[in-house]
Amino acid sequence: MKLYDSVRAPNPRRVRWVMAEKGVDDIEIVPIDIMAGDHRTKAYRAKVGVPHVPALELDDGTVISESVAIGRYLEALYPEPNLFGIDPKEQAWIEMWTRRCEFYLANPIMLNVRHSHPALAVLEAQQLPALAEYNKLAAERFMGTLDRRLEGRDFIACDRITIADIVAIVGIDFARLVKYRPPAELENLNRWMEAMRARPAAKAGL
Amino acid sequence: MKLYDSVRAPNPRRVRWVMAEKGVDDIEIVPIDIMAGDHRTKAYRAKVGVPHVPALELDDGTVISESVAIGRYLEALYPEPNLFGIDPKEQAWIEMWTRRCEFYLANPIMLNVRHSHPALAVLEAQQLPALAEYNKLAAERFMGTLDRRLEGRDFIACDRITIADIVAIVGIDFARLVKYRPPAELENLNRWMEAMRARPAAKAGL
Repeated sequence: MKLYDSVRAPNPRRVRWVMAEKGVDDIEIVPIDIMAGDHRTKAYRAKVGVPHVPALELDDGTVISESVAIGRYLEALYPEPNLFGIDPKEQAWIEMWTRRCEFYLANPIMLNVRHSHPALAVLEAQQLPALAEYNKLAAERFMGTLDRRLEGRDFIACDRITIADIVAIVGIDFARLVKYRPPAELENLNRWMEAMRARPAAKAGL
Repeated sequence: MKLYDSVRAPNPRRVRWVMAEKGVDDIEIVPIDIMAGDHRTKAYRAKVGVPHVPALELDDGTVISESVAIGRYLEALYPEPNLFGIDPKEQAWIEMWTRRCEFYLANPIMLNVRHSHPALAVLEAQQLPALAEYNKLAAERFMGTLDRRLEGRDFIACDRITIADIVAIVGIDFARLVKYRPPAELENLNRWMEAMRARPAAKAGL
């Protein structure tokens, strides 16, 4: 298998993090430079169907994009340690928290950065300051929810790391590009952030 | 089990559609009036954790929110007809298309409607016309991708209906609130839309 990867973007980092937690080292990494437009070439779009990284090319030629779909597929091939849930109820619980962390945290942060970082103007038809601010406020609202959730807990969904934690910390870390830090008074969130950043998988591919 | 449902919102309709395709009729429906703020009450938030519909309350008291997580859980309980994939590779393929339809179609349409429909001003701190327009353009860009994908195909991901089709048509139908119709020249997309709207499940709960 081959992973089309980019060190600059947050979504490929989710997949590298999943691979590192599981000790996966037999997937070929193909670097894609999104600032140079590698993901917009005709050859890449013909292969993946959309101008996005990451994408996983299977040995039969099937190409899967969307980082969480790739992660869940890798879980089927490399089941341990479990990141997506051991039975339907736990899978639903983890998917719920993962989606909350995507929609209300990681996506708003990504939109904030893409609409406020000068170097990323090239990725948007037009950077909109109002959109950047709207998304910052949305992300901070959910950080309050997460802070309450993390009171007395080490991880977001379960008593072990899951894909929900990976999505959340990768989202928060992306905001470092615009020198953003979550509010210090969210003590549970900040404690969890430091613990996540101390894991070996936090450095995967960086 | 109980489903906290709202006939006005798009995400609960995804779950009703999944239930209708599978013939599920043994889940109690609890109506939540989001225009009246039922989803923001202390009791609802204490139960679900976030002010969102839909939510599925299991018999043991666990509450799952996020429509696709609920749908995947229902698939485990009611496996036929299969909507999420029969093996890890097909599951990844369907999840990839589902996520594309969510992120690049349904979510932009929802943001467009919420930031342009006068009656929905109550749901936003501030309606932003620039955000509405940005999201309309994003949705239309992906409609072009879908139109090409649907050339010679009846369904988005596989040769049968899957959760990807349900997410996409529910997203497009939500734009009827602002009298929006996808461009007529997207003939494959329009053909697929009419076929989806002709399914009995399209009317579920409406």
